Amino acid sequence: MSNLIEKSLVSKEVFKGNLLNVFSDQVELPNGKKASREYIKHPGAVAVVPITQEGKIVLVRQYRYPIGKLLLEVPAGKLDKGEQPDECALRELEEETGYVAKNIKKIASIYTTPGFTDEIIHLYRAENLILSKPSPDEDEFLDVELYTKEEIKEMIADGRINDAKSMLALLLAGI
Amino acid sequence: MSNLIEKSLVSKEVFKGNLLNVFSDQVELPNGKKASREYIKHPGAVAVVPITQEGKIVLVRQYRYPIGKLLLEVPAGKLDKGEQPDECALRELEEETGYVAKNIKKIASIYTTPGFTDEIIHLYRAENLILSKPSPDEDEFLDVELYTKEEIKEMIADGRINDAKSMLALLLAGI
Repeated sequence: MSNLIEKSLVSKEVFKGNLLNVFSDQVELPNGKKASREYIKHPGAVAVVPITQEGKIVLVRQYRYPIGKLLLEVPAGKLDKGEQPDECALRELEEETGYVAKNIKKIASIYTTPGFTDEIIHLYRAENLILSKPSPDEDEFLDVELYTKEEIKEMIADGRINDAKSMLALLLAGI
Repeated sequence: MSNLIEKSLVSKEVFKGNLLNVFSDQVELPNGKKASREYIKHPGAVAVVPITQEGKIVLVRQYRYPIGKLLLEVPAGKLDKGEQPDECALRELEEETGYVAKNIKKIASIYTTPGFTDEIIHLYRAENLILSKPSPDEDEFLDVELYTKEEIKEMIADGRINDAKSMLALLLAGI
């Protein structure tokens, strides 16, 4: 294997927003030359495939402002500071859908866009759900929708489900 | 379906880098309240599953500075201005791996992280490959590696392939 490592020389935070923190680092390339690398630091996130006792999959429909569209996704959210991924998965599932899961199982951890962020999403499968009451964040608006496995397969095939983490979570959960 | 749309009130570019352009918009939420939305504008990208005449899959191993790791990925890259996705797929495949594809077929288009960017990646399957000469970008260093379908399945299952677009492209291409 070639030497492909890029060595960090200087790291600088160039933008600090409410959601996004952008860094621009100077790096030394494998050939000794210098280059800059811009990226977003992200706390990490979880996404959950919730399966009801009737075998239905619980999805959430929400408006994604950056693309100006409503997307159908698996419940998901960012890790709070110090929060473990499995706790976060249970919390986000309950907040967004009202379902409390008795069983939760890790499926995989994925890098969403390693070219410009360190975001990692931990994927889970949740079963034995009990319906409680949703409590989404104050500025979060979403619809909870239940689908059969066959409907999910169709919607992945025809592009009605086109959010990467949701597609991967559903496919890897064996839906 | 509820009204879930967020209406843009003011849009402002808050950081303009070499790679990343960050916007912070004021929006009106479905309940009439106001909120801010930060996001990255992205030109869009492609990712390609290249399959050789011997049935091997061509992957690239490259250092991803934001996460500080070498990742094994399908060849991929950003759209140039005015470039069509299928042209971009052929170009990136040849630049990164040296393979020229006679046949290319669209698999799907996916949103990578719709919470904070409008990035869309168009996934392709490329066949009937002829080996030419790679010509990666000046600051791009990568190894080209060929794997069997069985090896790919194993590496997705055990996490050695953990880049979301690559996993999805490979799974949807029927690998």
